[in-house]
Amino acid sequence: MSAGSAQADRALAMVGLGRMGSSMLRRLARAGFPVCGYDVADAARAALADEPHVVTVASLAEAVAMLRPPRAVWIMLPAGAITNQSIEAVAALLSPGDVILDGGNADYHDSLRQADALAARGLHFIDVGVSGGVWGLTEGYGLMFGGPQAAVAPLLPLFQALAPAPDRGWVHCGPSGSGHYTKMVHNGIEYGAMQAYAEGFALLHAKQEFALDVAAIAEAWRHGTVVRSWLLDLAAGELRSDPVMDQVVPVVADSGEGRWTVREGLDLGVPLPVTAAALNVRLASQGRGDYGARFLARLRNAFGGHAVKQRS
Amino acid sequence: MSAGSAQADRALAMVGLGRMGSSMLRRLARAGFPVCGYDVADAARAALADEPHVVTVASLAEAVAMLRPPRAVWIMLPAGAITNQSIEAVAALLSPGDVILDGGNADYHDSLRQADALAARGLHFIDVGVSGGVWGLTEGYGLMFGGPQAAVAPLLPLFQALAPAPDRGWVHCGPSGSGHYTKMVHNGIEYGAMQAYAEGFALLHAKQEFALDVAAIAEAWRHGTVVRSWLLDLAAGELRSDPVMDQVVPVVADSGEGRWTVREGLDLGVPLPVTAAALNVRLASQGRGDYGARFLARLRNAFGGHAVKQRS
Repeated sequence: MSAGSAQADRALAMVGLGRMGSSMLRRLARAGFPVCGYDVADAARAALADEPHVVTVASLAEAVAMLRPPRAVWIMLPAGAITNQSIEAVAALLSPGDVILDGGNADYHDSLRQADALAARGLHFIDVGVSGGVWGLTEGYGLMFGGPQAAVAPLLPLFQALAPAPDRGWVHCGPSGSGHYTKMVHNGIEYGAMQAYAEGFALLHAKQEFALDVAAIAEAWRHGTVVRSWLLDLAAGELRSDPVMDQVVPVVADSGEGRWTVREGLDLGVPLPVTAAALNVRLASQGRGDYGARFLARLRNAFGGHAVKQRS
Repeated sequence: MSAGSAQADRALAMVGLGRMGSSMLRRLARAGFPVCGYDVADAARAALADEPHVVTVASLAEAVAMLRPPRAVWIMLPAGAITNQSIEAVAALLSPGDVILDGGNADYHDSLRQADALAARGLHFIDVGVSGGVWGLTEGYGLMFGGPQAAVAPLLPLFQALAPAPDRGWVHCGPSGSGHYTKMVHNGIEYGAMQAYAEGFALLHAKQEFALDVAAIAEAWRHGTVVRSWLLDLAAGELRSDPVMDQVVPVVADSGEGRWTVREGLDLGVPLPVTAAALNVRLASQGRGDYGARFLARLRNAFGGHAVKQRS
């Protein structure tokens, strides 16, 4: 559909048509909601040309002009400066009573600030944690959102369409900030649970005398066991295609939420030994523990004369 | 069915008719296998009187006499002395070619020793890790077993009947010992994954300003999110009935497999920070860190004059 044919009848504008934003827009459109999408990249907009009920536009102003009031603009961009700039740019185009949703993995402290700043201008802010990744288009997204009930209520049908089913997979957590807080905790759990599996499969792999088939064990564990889970489903698929993974560089990125979770544990005085250990494994994998390892090597040498390996 | 009417036509004898053994026997019987069960406790035997195709007997000799050769006797008792004594008692009644299965959570080092000792007498040993707990009767049991192929092959139909489905949820891991090794690792993962959830829900509960409904969040997370799992399904049920749990004494037992897993990591030189942290949480919950805490309190007092609380 060309932008020219559109009226102010769109239920939602999505800002950011990357992997997540474009798939969410498709899921909404396929549920019957007329939506529009904006992205700075021509290619991102063009990729949605095949989707009926989706209009893409090349400016925020065009996107906002297409919305039926109260307008709802969903920012789906990387957390941080880009998201904050977009929220500011969108806010300048909206009117009191309109709603900005942030679906990125923002620090919930940022969301609290955004909510206050926008409220002072009569705008609502809803922070939405979105889980499900690349499988969301077909399986639905897990949604946890925070914001005032008055702003949330008119948008519930959209949340229900994005969720795995209208009656499940979404939760209105509480006030603004609580959605991203809940998503932060979700991702903290993800760190710990993933590391638990990683350690278990490392032990299976290391037990050479048994020559264990890690892929077969993962597959068997998917059914009837206490550790069955969606993460295990994914792991079984990965191990089936590549059980040894010896061409994979052993570096694991961390995108902020693990650190925020551990920091929150410190702020609240709640011990998080597993979450912190899982985060530390990722940090060490990035080489961030190397100075400490060099220090230990030198110290062992200093008191015991143990050999220190020098880079050649 | 009374014991008197039985012939040597039973496919398996179960020794130990507790929660696990009796449910497994029921699942086998309902799949059409004639089986017999033995337990020292009259009540445990009587509880199975309602189950067609199950015969219960009051002695091991009677149980063994009912089996068609090669005889298969499945020990389903707590790991350790009781299991070891039962294996010895059963072995004395069997003939070369017969099979003893151990479905308890034994230390795999014990299983290796049992397999060697029994092999010297011409008997096969299969160590079976069984997962699924109280849900196994209806949902099937996750099974991971180790033992010689010649002993495993004739029993495969029984494993397939116990599993969630004939084609899934079971794995022949490798030689004797590998079944309990794999189950040990499974339970190690369970420790870490459970603790990951525990920490996440503790953070949700502690964030009082958001007044989060932990039960609603757990329920929502079950659908579409990365952390969905069977453990989360259970957690959602628990939180629904009692989200604060303030009448639950915060002590978590450990039944050995966590310690074995961490020890195995040390033996193999595989770092297991999350598994060890999860185990340490349980040990501390049992008061086993109290001496250390008292020591720290005294030491803070010694160098900084910080108050030490005395028991009244």
